[in-house]
Amino acid sequence: MKEKIPYKIYLEEHEIPTQWYNVRSDMKNKPAPLLNPGTGQPLKAEDLEPIFCKELVKQELDNDTKWIDIPEEVLTFYKMYRPSPLVRAYFLEKALGTPAKIYYKFEGNNTSGSHKLNSAIAQAYYAKEQGLKGVTTETGAGQWGTALSMACQFFGLDCQVYMVKCSYEQKPFRREVMRTYGAKVTPSPSDTTNVGRKILAEFPGTSGSLGCAISEAVEAAVTQEGYRYELGSVLNQVLLHQSIIGLEAKTALDKYGIKPDIIIGCAGGGSNLGGLIAPFVGEKLRGEADYRIIAVEPASCPSFTRGKFAYDFCDTGMICPLAKMYTLGSQFIPSPSHSGGLRFHGMSTVLSQLYHDGLFEARAVEQTSVFEAATLFARAEGTLPAPESSHAIRVAIDEALKCKETGEEKTIVFGLTGTGYFDLVAYGEYNSGKMKDVIPTDEDIAASLAKLPKVD
Amino acid sequence: MKEKIPYKIYLEEHEIPTQWYNVRSDMKNKPAPLLNPGTGQPLKAEDLEPIFCKELVKQELDNDTKWIDIPEEVLTFYKMYRPSPLVRAYFLEKALGTPAKIYYKFEGNNTSGSHKLNSAIAQAYYAKEQGLKGVTTETGAGQWGTALSMACQFFGLDCQVYMVKCSYEQKPFRREVMRTYGAKVTPSPSDTTNVGRKILAEFPGTSGSLGCAISEAVEAAVTQEGYRYELGSVLNQVLLHQSIIGLEAKTALDKYGIKPDIIIGCAGGGSNLGGLIAPFVGEKLRGEADYRIIAVEPASCPSFTRGKFAYDFCDTGMICPLAKMYTLGSQFIPSPSHSGGLRFHGMSTVLSQLYHDGLFEARAVEQTSVFEAATLFARAEGTLPAPESSHAIRVAIDEALKCKETGEEKTIVFGLTGTGYFDLVAYGEYNSGKMKDVIPTDEDIAASLAKLPKVD
Repeated sequence: MKEKIPYKIYLEEHEIPTQWYNVRSDMKNKPAPLLNPGTGQPLKAEDLEPIFCKELVKQELDNDTKWIDIPEEVLTFYKMYRPSPLVRAYFLEKALGTPAKIYYKFEGNNTSGSHKLNSAIAQAYYAKEQGLKGVTTETGAGQWGTALSMACQFFGLDCQVYMVKCSYEQKPFRREVMRTYGAKVTPSPSDTTNVGRKILAEFPGTSGSLGCAISEAVEAAVTQEGYRYELGSVLNQVLLHQSIIGLEAKTALDKYGIKPDIIIGCAGGGSNLGGLIAPFVGEKLRGEADYRIIAVEPASCPSFTRGKFAYDFCDTGMICPLAKMYTLGSQFIPSPSHSGGLRFHGMSTVLSQLYHDGLFEARAVEQTSVFEAATLFARAEGTLPAPESSHAIRVAIDEALKCKETGEEKTIVFGLTGTGYFDLVAYGEYNSGKMKDVIPTDEDIAASLAKLPKVD
Repeated sequence: MKEKIPYKIYLEEHEIPTQWYNVRSDMKNKPAPLLNPGTGQPLKAEDLEPIFCKELVKQELDNDTKWIDIPEEVLTFYKMYRPSPLVRAYFLEKALGTPAKIYYKFEGNNTSGSHKLNSAIAQAYYAKEQGLKGVTTETGAGQWGTALSMACQFFGLDCQVYMVKCSYEQKPFRREVMRTYGAKVTPSPSDTTNVGRKILAEFPGTSGSLGCAISEAVEAAVTQEGYRYELGSVLNQVLLHQSIIGLEAKTALDKYGIKPDIIIGCAGGGSNLGGLIAPFVGEKLRGEADYRIIAVEPASCPSFTRGKFAYDFCDTGMICPLAKMYTLGSQFIPSPSHSGGLRFHGMSTVLSQLYHDGLFEARAVEQTSVFEAATLFARAEGTLPAPESSHAIRVAIDEALKCKETGEEKTIVFGLTGTGYFDLVAYGEYNSGKMKDVIPTDEDIAASLAKLPKVD
């Protein structure tokens, strides 16, 4: 098509996809099952249903159904913030002087500020469908907690968020967004759970941790009648819900006859990357098309590029199921980094298997170079990106600059997962020249990997 | 047209208006001229050009030209964040159970977080056209400063922002956004200007004020070669640039054959209200159509509803020109209120004249009821509104609830000027039940009005 591509491609409402795509259905090598850490046996639906909603467990274990209908009420909620625009980065292209054509799928134009809302609304819907009273979850900086608060509010569900205490105290902004959407936000550790009370007794002055908040949220879910626990990344179900990102992007690209050469996404637990690349990887798996796909992770927490593909605990506390994934070891503590959303020691099992099978490559980038890219992007395109998203920006810029050298007019698509309005302490550090890169040594990683659980 | 109205109406790029509308051209009673406070004589172009850009002075004084071409480079910048959506508030209508049809023009989906960018980009453009090196301005909480930083960055202009010291220290977030966009942000009072040094010598511990920041910004503009001062509200030129809001809204409404019954906007200095209502007021002035238009102001700073239509100083320091406007007196100090953008003691002279001539009505609302409306809106429509914008939401909800009583299916359009991501301290106060309403007494206002300057 010769039509001039607009700066922003918004699908019409009737063009928004009405089914999620389950990439597992096209995988020859399915992701390895979750194992019970006690028995080493694969987890069945009945093991998971006391913790997660029934329908979500079904989705978690379903490796076969290719297309899953998006419930009508979720489609209605989408109208609040979807379609998200696919933006042609004309300004960035000009700033770089590259012949590459750059597009980004922008998921940040909603109050939760990120793509997390896509899975939050689905998970809240199934909780409501099951007749539950409410759900529990944990949150660090608050991105996922905010998304789940908004979703629960829509369905009139109680939303109990355990927020890591230091974030609760030092980052009151997201806490207040959650409260505005009606969530109960509890600093963790708290005296509302056994595990919280135990930790408080042992470490009276503790400022909490994500592992501890998870434990409290799970306990709160299983000990209250009519409650379940919900999680915002890593799980297969989350990747399924996030496929809306890639499906919308592909619909918009197809509408204008654009075929990407390179697709780039940041990767923490994998929810954004898995969602963005799903339909494209599906084509690769079915041998219908080829794309170069790049996962970008922080050099401070490099699970794909320096981790091991092995069974490991999903949590630091070693109480959650074992998952086969690229991992740095559940005892790996990443150096303090502002990309809170990318600090998970492991990775989605789906993405781990796809990476193991060579469906995409991975690259680790350093924080200061990420903020350099973020600033360049903000100045060129106007939007202030989240530090997590800026990992993808870094590599998109690098690839566009390679095109400048070679003169190739490649089409690059990347995921801009969210905005950085709540990350200005990090921007301030960068602006003042105080930001540092801390990369784990080989010894650090080897020591952590030495503690991987033994699984036959 | 019978077509179902989408949740969000986005104009196509080619439908974005290419001219601003100058409402003064259709006013029979023109706004009174600015006066030199020393001589009492109307200010001429040559009086204003040492402070403001030449072309902006021309726009400021032009009461006759109806349509003014939007410069090509401003239209290009618009593509970064415009068109802004006109949203059908289906979710809010449902939450209220009203037969009214509610629409809002949402100006918050850009990193500056508000409509201020519309004038910032125009003002920066004319500075660049004039061959200037840079511009100066003041900012309180930072909304205008952020918008101007983004705009100057686009044209490679130096941007010097004097930020009220207490905001600089207590609200570092917007400061860092401005720095990310390359602005020089100086806490005011500072030792970089004579007026700043004088104030610091007199009041060593002062935390600054907007009046002081204005004085520093103006001094910095007139004492540096190649610099001018820019201002984000109140001025005629600003209302002209902001007419893009109303023009886009009207184009979108016309496209679907929708005729509003009631149009509602919040009013501080008048930039948003003036922009939103411009084409509708124009139709009223020309006798082509009738609309009920409501200006909403905070009960803590009620210039329209309790002020006097008289010549007054535009600033507390009594050094700026005299403007004929609805004013509470330049010495009026509004009680601390979180709607920082609505705390100006006066009002745009254009809007003041229109109000005096009965073209619209005004209503004052109290802060706690504004936050109640904001919370209701956030929960129904997803978007967290700015406190300023929420004044319009309050009255839109009130009018929709009246429709519920009477069964009337009125069409209500209001301006949602921005998002509340940087206003979460205020939301926190509201969420904790600690927010109070402070309304000035009749004696307060009378005392302040008694100090109005004498003008023949």
